[in-house]
Amino acid sequence: MPLHRVCGVFAFLSLCLISITPHCHGGNILVFPIDGSHWINMKVLLEELHARGHSLTVIRASNSWYIPEKSPLYTSITLEIGVGMEDFFDVFLQEQMKALREEDSLLTLKLTKDFLFMISEAHSLWTGAVSKIFEDHNMTKTLTDSQYDLVLTDPAIGPGVVLAKYLKLPVVLNVRWIPSGEGHFVLAPSPLSYIPVPGSGLTDKMNFIQRVKNMLFYSIILFQQKFVVGPYYEALCDKYIEGGCDIITLLQEADIWLFRSDFVFDFPRPTMPNVVYIGGFQCKPAQPLPADLEDFVQSAGEHGVIIMTLGTLVNALPKDVADEIASVFAKLPQKVIWRHKGERPSTLGNNTLIVDWMPQKDLLGHPQTRVFVAHGGTNGVQEAIYHGVPVLGIPLFFDQYDNLLRLQERGAGKILQLADVNGKTFEEGIKELLHQDSYRENIQRMSRLHRDQPMAPMDQAVFWIEYVMRHKGAPHLRTEAYKMPWYSYYCVDVLLLLLTAVTVLLMSTVAVFR
Amino acid sequence: MPLHRVCGVFAFLSLCLISITPHCHGGNILVFPIDGSHWINMKVLLEELHARGHSLTVIRASNSWYIPEKSPLYTSITLEIGVGMEDFFDVFLQEQMKALREEDSLLTLKLTKDFLFMISEAHSLWTGAVSKIFEDHNMTKTLTDSQYDLVLTDPAIGPGVVLAKYLKLPVVLNVRWIPSGEGHFVLAPSPLSYIPVPGSGLTDKMNFIQRVKNMLFYSIILFQQKFVVGPYYEALCDKYIEGGCDIITLLQEADIWLFRSDFVFDFPRPTMPNVVYIGGFQCKPAQPLPADLEDFVQSAGEHGVIIMTLGTLVNALPKDVADEIASVFAKLPQKVIWRHKGERPSTLGNNTLIVDWMPQKDLLGHPQTRVFVAHGGTNGVQEAIYHGVPVLGIPLFFDQYDNLLRLQERGAGKILQLADVNGKTFEEGIKELLHQDSYRENIQRMSRLHRDQPMAPMDQAVFWIEYVMRHKGAPHLRTEAYKMPWYSYYCVDVLLLLLTAVTVLLMSTVAVFR
Repeated sequence: MPLHRVCGVFAFLSLCLISITPHCHGGNILVFPIDGSHWINMKVLLEELHARGHSLTVIRASNSWYIPEKSPLYTSITLEIGVGMEDFFDVFLQEQMKALREEDSLLTLKLTKDFLFMISEAHSLWTGAVSKIFEDHNMTKTLTDSQYDLVLTDPAIGPGVVLAKYLKLPVVLNVRWIPSGEGHFVLAPSPLSYIPVPGSGLTDKMNFIQRVKNMLFYSIILFQQKFVVGPYYEALCDKYIEGGCDIITLLQEADIWLFRSDFVFDFPRPTMPNVVYIGGFQCKPAQPLPADLEDFVQSAGEHGVIIMTLGTLVNALPKDVADEIASVFAKLPQKVIWRHKGERPSTLGNNTLIVDWMPQKDLLGHPQTRVFVAHGGTNGVQEAIYHGVPVLGIPLFFDQYDNLLRLQERGAGKILQLADVNGKTFEEGIKELLHQDSYRENIQRMSRLHRDQPMAPMDQAVFWIEYVMRHKGAPHLRTEAYKMPWYSYYCVDVLLLLLTAVTVLLMSTVAVFR
Repeated sequence: MPLHRVCGVFAFLSLCLISITPHCHGGNILVFPIDGSHWINMKVLLEELHARGHSLTVIRASNSWYIPEKSPLYTSITLEIGVGMEDFFDVFLQEQMKALREEDSLLTLKLTKDFLFMISEAHSLWTGAVSKIFEDHNMTKTLTDSQYDLVLTDPAIGPGVVLAKYLKLPVVLNVRWIPSGEGHFVLAPSPLSYIPVPGSGLTDKMNFIQRVKNMLFYSIILFQQKFVVGPYYEALCDKYIEGGCDIITLLQEADIWLFRSDFVFDFPRPTMPNVVYIGGFQCKPAQPLPADLEDFVQSAGEHGVIIMTLGTLVNALPKDVADEIASVFAKLPQKVIWRHKGERPSTLGNNTLIVDWMPQKDLLGHPQTRVFVAHGGTNGVQEAIYHGVPVLGIPLFFDQYDNLLRLQERGAGKILQLADVNGKTFEEGIKELLHQDSYRENIQRMSRLHRDQPMAPMDQAVFWIEYVMRHKGAPHLRTEAYKMPWYSYYCVDVLLLLLTAVTVLLMSTVAVFR
């Protein structure tokens, strides 16, 4: 089925949805977002909620990177969270890139320590900020009096769910990450035999050694939860929530998980009735390019265009890497649009346009685009899937390797480690993606599957947020599992009893015969 | 232990959106249904598929109870499956009712044996019938040449999936029961600590003793799979499928599970990406009643109407039970419509209308209807939820107790065991449901939740069937779990290694210190 037809379907579905689902006029939503790239996604959702007539209140930090105080979309509540972490964060990223380039395991070890410190700081700052809310009686009175219908929060940092608990409000999560890793791991059964722990670089097909590795990675997550992240929330809960609580339990109490993933992108796995997969909800059909860019793209003719970006976090690629890449580009018949910060590579060819910013979605949706050279951030990967453009990935930070791995496993992309990038490997990689048809076929198949859903992910997201408002929660979708101690959950007590019974029976029989 | 609980395990017998989703014109579907009440549901789905232009071929037995050879909906392939089991089945049901009424545990034990025999016979007959297809080269050639797009089957009896494997076709299941119990148990992680085994009469909240009971019931399922049902399919697979197969693996290979349940009706539990919940997909808004029935219903005035049916399987209620019930009805100010076979009760009041058949859905959707007295078959329970009518349940066979239990747990219905039915208990029960508002409030809340879905269940069903045709299967939604041996799946091997490593480490440390 032609792609445009499916798109049309999506558009129509949205219209239909508006006309047939019961509306929640004047819904009143308290939003606790995460800053940075997480905000980009949340904002897209808020735009849709605003357009549907809901009123939004956003909690933000006074020194926020991305979240403005004034917006036509929402009113804001600004918290003083003390010193920002940008400088530390920048140093961390530069060091990580250095470690990646040099495969320096000592530096990697130091970075792991720094990473845990960074995480610890972030949770410390935010739980501190929320405790200031709880101490400020005017603020809590205002929040209570506002009679919000629900809290919408991204729980990568968890104070949103603590605040919701305090205000006794239903919770909808816009989620992929939680303080101790990936959301599914606290939500649904996650057998480590075929569910790779993010960061492990493993897939859903593991041999024995890989399963050992997976379990070791999982123990890091448990460590992080128990000793790095958990204590901040327990302290907060002990002080302000009657009966105490912990971050895992609060997450498990959420009514709906709007999960920024789907099973075209991710490996299939057990899930739960209150999880709604909205991966790619931010994707939209491509808009026309600015005239000069369109001219440049068309000038490529039959060879088409390569676009490259390594995301907003990279201030500068190592100079030698940039030079190698530029010289490979210079040799190609394609035109190249490269979002590049830092010094202009000396080897740059006439076919390569260096830009500060590019309309990435519109370029990915342009029929001239052949290959996307990218770092593998979630947004970029989802957009590549949506538009069906194969990816040559150079993963740098966080989940980027794992994201790209999901494309590579489907034959829709190829990973090039920063340490291995040189003129030869980069040229081979880019030519493989340009000329081996399977890459394009595979990602276009992923695109067709991703777009062929009963309802567009954004409409799903809005439906379920309004659902929670209509029914004041969705507790009927939550399992009993979360209330049980582990030995009951795993039936260890029952098995012990049955084993004992069998043993006694056997021993009595033996005794009788003797 | 009442037999119906054991039997419940097996249940052997068994809008605008869609108009604009991409069509699959000329889809060619091979349907392998189950006879009896299962066919009622399948037929509703086939009507929809036929209306959307798909061509259907239905495989049926020459002595089918419900499935006609000629139909405007489909062409049929008729198999000789030998002697039918109606007579045996009828005797079985009458005996079961007797055991239920008398709480006769000896008879119950005999029935358990009979039940296993009946199951065994059914699978024997049907695997035999399918082997006749495989032996008939004209038939296999016709089936192959027909180039079906997929096999749609109800896997309560499993030959449909074996045939699909033979023909190498994608599979969509219209499912709740499989040969060894409930479908989820072979599909998704099912911790026995909070997932009640059907037939156990347990809920998702279990104490220690109940969890022991649940595990014992599960062992019956394993026994049935291993020794009663499994061997028939293994023999069939060994003979006709290259490399062999077994029924569990074949079920796990299905592309989409259209599951006749949802989490308004059932307890929430882990699920899988390829499961689509279509519970209540057969429900439709009420149509106007025939004039005479409408007059009768309106004559009830403010008191409203009670409707009663114990399903198609009951030939006659024990006479004393019918008399007791009739005399209670006679005392009530409500009007009663009672679908009753057998002798007319001597105590019948003027307010009670005895009928052979009634437009159950339309009566349930009538604003005059106050209470539904029913046996708890899936269809009736789903319709009661859809229309929001509280249920006084008298469970008799198979899954009926468990279905009613799900209403009772939500305060939307009440169970009266056949052994306990007398004038006093029945009157108390019916008055409780009539006058205690919570029953109506609770089932109306369930009704609102059930109806508030992003897409109607029937439209979901059709969407996913067409999806499988469009993409020639949906293997990307199937986990790797099913391919693993149990010790790998549960990481037993990994845990043993890690335990050994820790032990060696500890012992070396101790040795060194010594």
